[in-house]
Amino acid sequence: MDLMLNFGIIGIEKESKIIKFNETILYDVIIIGGGAAGLTASVYCMRKGLKTGIIGKNIGGQITSTKNIENYMGYKNVEGIDLVEKFKEQVKQFEISYIDDKEVISLKNEGNINYIELDDGKVYRSKTVIIATGAKWRKLGVKGENELIGKGVAFCTTCDAPLYKDKKVAIIGGGNSGLEAALDLIKIVEKLYLIEYDNKIKADEILVKKLGEYSNYEILTGHQVIEIIGKDKVEKIVLENRNNKEVDRLIVDGVFIEIGLEPNSEFLGNLLELDSNNRIKVDCSCKTSIESIFAAGDVTTVPYNQIIIAASEGAKAALSAYNYLTKSE
Amino acid sequence: MDLMLNFGIIGIEKESKIIKFNETILYDVIIIGGGAAGLTASVYCMRKGLKTGIIGKNIGGQITSTKNIENYMGYKNVEGIDLVEKFKEQVKQFEISYIDDKEVISLKNEGNINYIELDDGKVYRSKTVIIATGAKWRKLGVKGENELIGKGVAFCTTCDAPLYKDKKVAIIGGGNSGLEAALDLIKIVEKLYLIEYDNKIKADEILVKKLGEYSNYEILTGHQVIEIIGKDKVEKIVLENRNNKEVDRLIVDGVFIEIGLEPNSEFLGNLLELDSNNRIKVDCSCKTSIESIFAAGDVTTVPYNQIIIAASEGAKAALSAYNYLTKSE
Repeated sequence: MDLMLNFGIIGIEKESKIIKFNETILYDVIIIGGGAAGLTASVYCMRKGLKTGIIGKNIGGQITSTKNIENYMGYKNVEGIDLVEKFKEQVKQFEISYIDDKEVISLKNEGNINYIELDDGKVYRSKTVIIATGAKWRKLGVKGENELIGKGVAFCTTCDAPLYKDKKVAIIGGGNSGLEAALDLIKIVEKLYLIEYDNKIKADEILVKKLGEYSNYEILTGHQVIEIIGKDKVEKIVLENRNNKEVDRLIVDGVFIEIGLEPNSEFLGNLLELDSNNRIKVDCSCKTSIESIFAAGDVTTVPYNQIIIAASEGAKAALSAYNYLTKSE
Repeated sequence: MDLMLNFGIIGIEKESKIIKFNETILYDVIIIGGGAAGLTASVYCMRKGLKTGIIGKNIGGQITSTKNIENYMGYKNVEGIDLVEKFKEQVKQFEISYIDDKEVISLKNEGNINYIELDDGKVYRSKTVIIATGAKWRKLGVKGENELIGKGVAFCTTCDAPLYKDKKVAIIGGGNSGLEAALDLIKIVEKLYLIEYDNKIKADEILVKKLGEYSNYEILTGHQVIEIIGKDKVEKIVLENRNNKEVDRLIVDGVFIEIGLEPNSEFLGNLLELDSNNRIKVDCSCKTSIESIFAAGDVTTVPYNQIIIAASEGAKAALSAYNYLTKSE
């Protein structure tokens, strides 16, 4: 009981005095990551009465940079930041240990105890761990890309679209992310190019239709970006037609790269089984290759990156961790 | 295009002239079931531009009989019927074929076409099928139970709690459903007995704590109901102590049976692989043992019966059906 009091009531963000994790406590569960999966996992863990901690540098995760969400059930149309607020409200009902400004640099497992090391040198111990670190924007890996990030090369239209008013932009990627980015930009830019590597647009038909209401765009399928050119800012992109190998240049002021996500699994080293894309292999109950470690959401092999799916996986991971604890106690 | 017009814009329930399914159309996807999984699947299918139909006798499914939902992310506290309204609003944005008053009595698969037979003799054809028929209350299977349903034997506290004001009730089952039922009843009944077969209550600690704020209840773990007694209405239940085999009688006016769910999979016959509890075996992408048939939610082997999980599974099934159609076209 004394242990529980040490946790205090910690509101996320609004409260300034966040009670630090305690190195002397053996937690029931520590959740790494504060996106849809992590926040949902924490609600489920707290409802089960578990001694719970959550460590997440970017609360809300990818949702915060999504503008209009129309496929999260319960909300016909909601802004990402508003949905995150709702999620946080739900978490804030509970007494939870919380760190939002440190990074986990390693995770080690020794039998029934897991050791979570942070970049400030602190090490916390937990009977179970839920990894919900999500994923980040994937890069093209072409010349000029890294050098021009923030100078015309961008990933998040919600953040950067206003900078391209009446300008020319290229969106790389013809999946849902690319089309959603296109719809964010089309109303304000002079001209938009949508570049897709495959010979076919893969996005939802409804999004393609919506884009069809505008005329200031061009779709180039079967094209690959091979270089981004610019001194202090983006000036051109170099495209190769994958079917006839012809190379062309396109004058643009901005390039939005929307080719998917890379799982945030580097800190794991060789601890867990990963797939060839470095996603944590999980079964349908969010179990990983180590019995006391669970994983949920975009950092895992669960198919399809959707908010409702990540949230559901967070719930599953929490319930699986709870079952494991019940069995092992 | 003409085919699409035949569908019309069909609002669920509010619109009286529901355009019937058309037997001459080969649908892209027919969704059987209108609970969290089915409604979510329909939103995802329609957003992908698929020719979609939905057949569900009980729109909203089990959610409609859940009172306070506190673990559906995005809503700190919501009534089941209100959440269903939100889900339906989202579905109603789209042109969808819709039947809400017929039962599916059989499903047949012949290569790339599935045949869905209704109890009015009509047969509809679809390239893919998503089964989201959910589950129903499980019964005890004891003497007196069937005879006294509606006469004191009940399953849904949201529906029937008011009938037991200042009376004595027993709740059978100490899982979350049992505790949630107890919290529905405790404020209005004179006395409440919570009967659990195992030697331990399995519900969330937070629910057990909440019940602890009251004093008009008794918990009997390690007890089994062996008979329900009553002429025109419930009078007593007969309990056996599973540890010492002693038999006792408890005078009650009502018995709420909260021991879980039975999957609605009977109409399938031997078509699909089922587990020993008659749940449809699915992989993590909601694929069944037949390539063009997908399944989602409580009718499947997906672990944990939660609204957010059923919704997520509906999304997965829809995206898997879409991928199958894209590959096979």
